Amino acid sequence: MKAAYSLTAAVALGLGSSLAAADDAMLERAQLLFKPIPDSAEDVLADRNPMTPEKIELGEMLFFDPRLSASQTISCNTCHNVGMGGDDNIPTSIGHDWQRGPRNSPTIFNAVFNVAQFWDGRAEDLQEQAKGPIQAGVEMNNTPDNLERTLNSIETYVEMFNEAFPDDPNPVSFDNVASSLEVYQATLITPDAPFDLYLKGDKDALTEQQMAGLDAFMNKGCVACHNGVNVGGQGYYPFGVISRPGADILPDDDLGRAQVTETAADRYVFRSPSLRNVELTAPYFHSGNVWSLREAVAVMNDSQLGSLLSDQEVEDVTAFLRALTGKQPDVVYPVMPVRTDSTPLPDIPDYPRGAAAN
Amino acid sequence: MKAAYSLTAAVALGLGSSLAAADDAMLERAQLLFKPIPDSAEDVLADRNPMTPEKIELGEMLFFDPRLSASQTISCNTCHNVGMGGDDNIPTSIGHDWQRGPRNSPTIFNAVFNVAQFWDGRAEDLQEQAKGPIQAGVEMNNTPDNLERTLNSIETYVEMFNEAFPDDPNPVSFDNVASSLEVYQATLITPDAPFDLYLKGDKDALTEQQMAGLDAFMNKGCVACHNGVNVGGQGYYPFGVISRPGADILPDDDLGRAQVTETAADRYVFRSPSLRNVELTAPYFHSGNVWSLREAVAVMNDSQLGSLLSDQEVEDVTAFLRALTGKQPDVVYPVMPVRTDSTPLPDIPDYPRGAAAN
Repeated sequence: MKAAYSLTAAVALGLGSSLAAADDAMLERAQLLFKPIPDSAEDVLADRNPMTPEKIELGEMLFFDPRLSASQTISCNTCHNVGMGGDDNIPTSIGHDWQRGPRNSPTIFNAVFNVAQFWDGRAEDLQEQAKGPIQAGVEMNNTPDNLERTLNSIETYVEMFNEAFPDDPNPVSFDNVASSLEVYQATLITPDAPFDLYLKGDKDALTEQQMAGLDAFMNKGCVACHNGVNVGGQGYYPFGVISRPGADILPDDDLGRAQVTETAADRYVFRSPSLRNVELTAPYFHSGNVWSLREAVAVMNDSQLGSLLSDQEVEDVTAFLRALTGKQPDVVYPVMPVRTDSTPLPDIPDYPRGAAAN
Repeated sequence: MKAAYSLTAAVALGLGSSLAAADDAMLERAQLLFKPIPDSAEDVLADRNPMTPEKIELGEMLFFDPRLSASQTISCNTCHNVGMGGDDNIPTSIGHDWQRGPRNSPTIFNAVFNVAQFWDGRAEDLQEQAKGPIQAGVEMNNTPDNLERTLNSIETYVEMFNEAFPDDPNPVSFDNVASSLEVYQATLITPDAPFDLYLKGDKDALTEQQMAGLDAFMNKGCVACHNGVNVGGQGYYPFGVISRPGADILPDDDLGRAQVTETAADRYVFRSPSLRNVELTAPYFHSGNVWSLREAVAVMNDSQLGSLLSDQEVEDVTAFLRALTGKQPDVVYPVMPVRTDSTPLPDIPDYPRGAAAN
């Protein structure tokens, strides 16, 4: 029995009372609003940065190589853990010298399908995004020059760049580091979530409560900011449009998109996050201070929807969001090439050495 | 032509001048002094902590799970990187709150074959060893109680402990965390190095220079501390027995084994490290301040052998050591189970958040 949602749907969709018809109409509406995760992201990068096996192999090695950071201890995977939903599951990331980043680390899974990267969308794609953390003082704290010298000191890397960028007169470049990282990350997609199966026509892929949650999600406003292939990540919206949450959730000093556009109207505007695999990526929001998915839905209900969702609908939407967890990527840990005597040494503040251990 | 070493061997072994005979005698001597890495370490743990598929699967997940640390950001793999020779390739490890450890992180590869663990051998096996870094304030800074609460809050972990320790009335325990970590690490062995092929009878497995290096290694004293299956790791020896290296290499305040035995004779005594995969594990010595393998051999030559090795022999021994690099383990990155609302939160000092990033 699916009366709980289908009657609502029947009303919302202006259909007759037939539950079967409501089921069909709901699937059709969902198919208009969302798209399944495709089996490959090749089409997205085909024109700009084609996904070749050579770039994927190089990008994976770079993704896991801590020598991308000045201290040679922080890799992309440190804050975008491929075994933990593609992020680090802490409020804001810890970087060089144990500094804290200002915003919650976004998942890299399916990020290739987002309209832009970073919470404020200041990077238009993953290639541009990759250059940020490597250079950020609070993250990897490295420089393009030092990274290029590191990679050039390791023959295997030089060969891999030559193979990945055969037509480039200067293959071992910071640009090509970012290019191969983008291509590797484009392989980190999570198809076949229950919701994907539903969108492909399997009406039994979601539980009854998840169907009720989808119904509320589509008919009570969530879908306005969370739609498309990533169920979000496609546009920019003000956080707290109806009622501003507390400063712990929406810090006063983070103006979001306005820091990019320098437009007053963009104050506290952020790119809506993808909700793909959201149950794996707590804590939530750019401030990373909400640990419970149910609480996150409740915060959105109050701040964005004027509490349009009933308590039951908050539960139902939370259940629906758990249907967005897809097949996690299969990752073989790369064996990285060994340093040489000409490889730059790690830049680590020379603190006194503690006691115990090793 | 292998005259370079075989004449030396002929003399050292007191054999006739037949190069073939010298080749045979050298292989026989090597087979007496060393053993190839076996295909499995099952025999080592068979009586005490049998290697079951359930323990291996659980141990691998724990090995990569940063929630073993108080900050939930540091995993075993952070300092024992399976893609970089099983260590972190920095002088001394960086732990909780960016603290520095006192000694260089040893590789975990083939560690199951060592006589004991840690540079001073204070842990008799990998099960006991695993409990150290998890609790060390300068490393993971966690407590057994907090870790057990974390694991008990995640149903998948509870099920995996139940399956790995079916006869244990309290499967989710700190002891069993260590037990499964030991079993997983026992799978991280590196057979089939050129030297292993040589020990198995392939006289062409080593280059001529590596054969000359092996000859010097066996006949000029290196083998006294570096023998057996791990080419080291089997006993305790004074560092600087003939001439003490500088304090940058042998710090005055690290008494080594004497801190365990409280015996004056053990001052500056350390467990000889395994030389397996040594070309992958720079920087060298417990202080981790020597980056070049050739320099490390030269330091040993001066401090332990009274400069018995000629400059050419230092080069030859260095070449031989590169024949100790085996097949690196194939590791599939585990997908870790998601936290729940009852999982303890990460313990991270609340530093002000930096600018930029994400």
